[in-house]
Amino acid sequence: MLSRHQLIDQIKRKKTFLCIGLDPDIEKIPAFLHQYADPVLEFNKRIIDATKDLCVAYKPNAAFYESKGIKGLQSLIDTYKYLPKECLSIIDAKRGDIGNTSDQYAQAFFNEEVTGMGFDAITITPYMGNDSVTPYLKYEGKWVIILALTSSVGSKDFQYLNTEHGHLYEAVIQKANTWAGADRIMYVVGATKSEEFTNIRKYAPDNFLLVPGVGAQGGSLEDVCKYGITKDCGLLVNSSRGIIYASNGEDFADAARAEALKLQVQMEEELEKASVI
Amino acid sequence: MLSRHQLIDQIKRKKTFLCIGLDPDIEKIPAFLHQYADPVLEFNKRIIDATKDLCVAYKPNAAFYESKGIKGLQSLIDTYKYLPKECLSIIDAKRGDIGNTSDQYAQAFFNEEVTGMGFDAITITPYMGNDSVTPYLKYEGKWVIILALTSSVGSKDFQYLNTEHGHLYEAVIQKANTWAGADRIMYVVGATKSEEFTNIRKYAPDNFLLVPGVGAQGGSLEDVCKYGITKDCGLLVNSSRGIIYASNGEDFADAARAEALKLQVQMEEELEKASVI
Repeated sequence: MLSRHQLIDQIKRKKTFLCIGLDPDIEKIPAFLHQYADPVLEFNKRIIDATKDLCVAYKPNAAFYESKGIKGLQSLIDTYKYLPKECLSIIDAKRGDIGNTSDQYAQAFFNEEVTGMGFDAITITPYMGNDSVTPYLKYEGKWVIILALTSSVGSKDFQYLNTEHGHLYEAVIQKANTWAGADRIMYVVGATKSEEFTNIRKYAPDNFLLVPGVGAQGGSLEDVCKYGITKDCGLLVNSSRGIIYASNGEDFADAARAEALKLQVQMEEELEKASVI
Repeated sequence: MLSRHQLIDQIKRKKTFLCIGLDPDIEKIPAFLHQYADPVLEFNKRIIDATKDLCVAYKPNAAFYESKGIKGLQSLIDTYKYLPKECLSIIDAKRGDIGNTSDQYAQAFFNEEVTGMGFDAITITPYMGNDSVTPYLKYEGKWVIILALTSSVGSKDFQYLNTEHGHLYEAVIQKANTWAGADRIMYVVGATKSEEFTNIRKYAPDNFLLVPGVGAQGGSLEDVCKYGITKDCGLLVNSSRGIIYASNGEDFADAARAEALKLQVQMEEELEKASVI
């Protein structure tokens, strides 16, 4: 469990707002790891050990584990258990269903006693509205991170539609703000959409934004900060592929650390520029 | 694998377009089943045995299995394996993510060799646009069932927003129609929205509609058929709780059959009325 206050405190102390996406594709991880009983877990552990002082959050994407069946789910559970408790643990699951079903998903990812996983936060897709979000909020202190404006090409299909409440992604933020405050809800906003950050800050002045798309997808950290940073930072910038696949040799963890460090150094500058630290 | 032609053929032969939702909540299943190694699997097997001549599809909702961790995933895999091959097998997963991640989800539910599950169809949430759908279509013959207008209260939050292409749910259908035809794409339309079916048929004259919300959620089968049935039927009407929890005693499978039979009889009438059979 990590409160907003604790998260901000950690950002200031570590001088970073980096989130590392743990999306290990078995075909891309270094070959020598295949000698281990669980190569994916071994990969994640070494990435975590090499980067935990440089980031404030880890975000495994459920798909990369589910695609391996039972074995993959076991890797996810064991990865969750290995995450440093001071970091925000986010399960990137993008779930969204009716109320009684969302209760089940909330149990899957939040109730450690039953499933072995007790993540601090979950990503949620908003299409089905409030009952796809509120069941998660019943777990005191847990976070819901709602998709607003995503980073990939498909985001153009619906998220920019004009509605009576602005673009669809703006309508989503305005409505979701009525469900809980900035101490429980974050929004996903892609780094490739930096021109929209000013606009998003109108609706979500205090909410943390989880920002994918820096690195592999082409977003700029500088632009994201220029328009998105707040006095409390208010940003978690995620990098997955750019860090975890920095090398596919035996030095992959060192290479991951080097990439994470580059981002941390830039982030420290941005935090100073914005007088957060 | 079940083609559109085979699905229609089965509907005509069995005189039913019932889909049964296998959403077993461990707290609601009959107590005597707890003596079995896997009570959920035992529950599902008996429901399937008692209803397979009365329905054309089964739809486990992933949440009800994920909420039990590793054990739950094993129940889902074993349930998948027990499904009659002539019925359409739908995993109600409501996934939706960027392209490279959707590839992973597609493998999770479609690639039996890797995960033990090779469902015929998956439900998808459209918020992230085309790259959250197209990766599934790479699996030849598999179906994608896209959320359009859902049955619960939260559907009012965003799905009815007015956009330049009509309500959001209409915009979703129009756009998704450009990704694949009625032989690969179905839409979810809640039974509680029967007044919208005429409208939906304007955009999706031939697509099958997966219709939840009859029974526990209050939708009327008659109204759904009045406005939604086509010459090929074009409907899969789902019931979950109304059938699987018809009794919580030792007679639960018989009671489930009785409820399924009631629906089958009504469906046969509707198929005749619409001259499908």
